[in-house]
Parts: sequence; C-alpha cells; structure tokens
Amino acid sequence: MLVGSYATGATLGVLLSGLGVQAADNPVPAILRVLQAQTEAWNRGDLEAYMEGYWKSDKLTFYGGGTVVRGWQATLERYRRRYQSEGRDMGRLDFPDQEVEILGPDTALARGHYHLSMPDGSEPRGLYTVILRKLPEGWRIVHDHSSSE
Amino acid sequence: MLVGSYATGATLGVLLSGLGVQAADNPVPAILRVLQAQTEAWNRGDLEAYMEGYWKSDKLTFYGGGTVVRGWQATLERYRRRYQSEGRDMGRLDFPDQEVEILGPDTALARGHYHLSMPDGSEPRGLYTVILRKLPEGWRIVHDHSSSE
Repeated sequence: MLVGSYATGATLGVLLSGLGVQAADNPVPAILRVLQAQTEAWNRGDLEAYMEGYWKSDKLTFYGGGTVVRGWQATLERYRRRYQSEGRDMGRLDFPDQEVEILGPDTALARGHYHLSMPDGSEPRGLYTVILRKLPEGWRIVHDHSSSE
Repeated sequence: MLVGSYATGATLGVLLSGLGVQAADNPVPAILRVLQAQTEAWNRGDLEAYMEGYWKSDKLTFYGGGTVVRGWQATLERYRRRYQSEGRDMGRLDFPDQEVEILGPDTALARGHYHLSMPDGSEPRGLYTVILRKLPEGWRIVHDHSSSE
C-alpha cells in the first residue's frame, strides 16, 4: 500500500495532516532518524556506526559500480576499501532532495542524490535508491542501489 | 510485508509451494509477464510497447547515469535518444538472474543485471532496481534505477 510520498524537514507535518495520517502510525520520522544517524556517523568518520543503518544479514544487497555485493560484512569491507584505505578521510556526506515513500506496512523506499565533499576538493555525486524494512531492531536498509555520476 | 523472494523460471513453483502461497493470490507471475513483455518488445525494436511496462504518469521516476528523469514521456524520449537516434538498432536485451520480491499488497521489487547485445558487437551491461505497483491497468514500474558497469 502506497500511503504517500513525503518530503523531509519542515513540510512533513503539512503533508501528513493533509493525508489524515496519525503521527503515532507514521513511520517516516523513524526512517528519517535512521538515515540521519547514518549521515552523522559518516561525518565523524565512524563507518561501523554508519553501517548500523543496514540490515545485519547475509541477505543485504548492495548494487554499485556494476557490481553486486551480498551481505552486511562484505558491504562494510567495500566501504572500508573505498573510503578508509591508507587512512583516508571519508569526507562530508549529505543527501540533497531525499524522498521517503511508504510501500507497505513494513517497507519503505528512500531515494535521491548523494553528495560527498572530500578533503582534496573533489565532490563525488550520484543517485541512490534504498529499500528499508521494519525489523525487530528498527528500520534498516535491506537493498541499496547507488550509482555515481 | 515481505512475503518472499522468488527466482524466475522453473524453480518458482517449488518456492511458492514451500511458502504455502496460494497460486491465485501470488502476484509474481503477473509481474514476470510484464517484464517478459518488455523484453520481447525491446527485442523486436518496439520502444512504445516496451514503455507499456512503465507507469504512464508524470510521477514515474527514472534514475540513470547520475540523472533523474521524471515522467513517462521524458523517459520515452531518453530511451529514444539513447537507442533509436539515427536509425540505430536497439540490440538484444536480456535480464540475467532477475529476482522479484513482494514488498506489500500492491508493491514489488525486481532487480538484477541487464545485458544488451548490440549489432556492432558491444555488450552494454549493468544493474537495475525497479519498484512496481499494482495499478488498475496492471503491474507497472513506478521507479527505475539503472546503472551501467
């Protein structure tokens, strides 16, 4: 059931009241907290805390650069190789125009642009589509498709 | 509700019976028919028929090559520019290891590799993640994220 598409931030309350969604039933704030915690973890260089947003399962899938990575541990290692090798700074991450959409009672879609500001002045950018599920431990990303520009 | 992950083809019946899913309630065959019709349309060079698999709405989103395309018409025009300009042959399309997963009563995820065999011998490949919704007209792709290798 697609109950609505939500913008983040200040317009959220307006959209929710327009749809007649009860705040207590609305999962969007909990999803946004998970994604926000990931951003904050990345920006303090804490890759393990960033990875807490992902399903800690061998069934997690990460699509990127034409390659399929399967499993939480393999995804962590991919991030380590790309962003932490040789003591590199991970840079500063943000997600412009993030959209969260509820797909069912315990599934959601988040998508938009990602943008990194690296210490060397480079600014890798791209698009992401992530599927989240509500698990006993909270909302977690179960599938990530990220593609660079 | 994630009711299961399904392989395509011969193993489907086995997986379904293992999950106790009633064939009449199972949307996977209808979804596979839409995706199969797209492949067949592509392979006879019929881009309009291929596009019937997409939601005919301004809200359709297509993520590819770092760019967001919004709307069915704009997505058709992107395909025309890339694959039909100057009378080019669209090549032969297939989707190795396609996986379909039910996300809710009227939403599903399909993902895997795409592979094109072009007349000039090139073989563009990449990954796709698509979200489908069950609409009055049938299952349609409402969001497509495709990234090349």
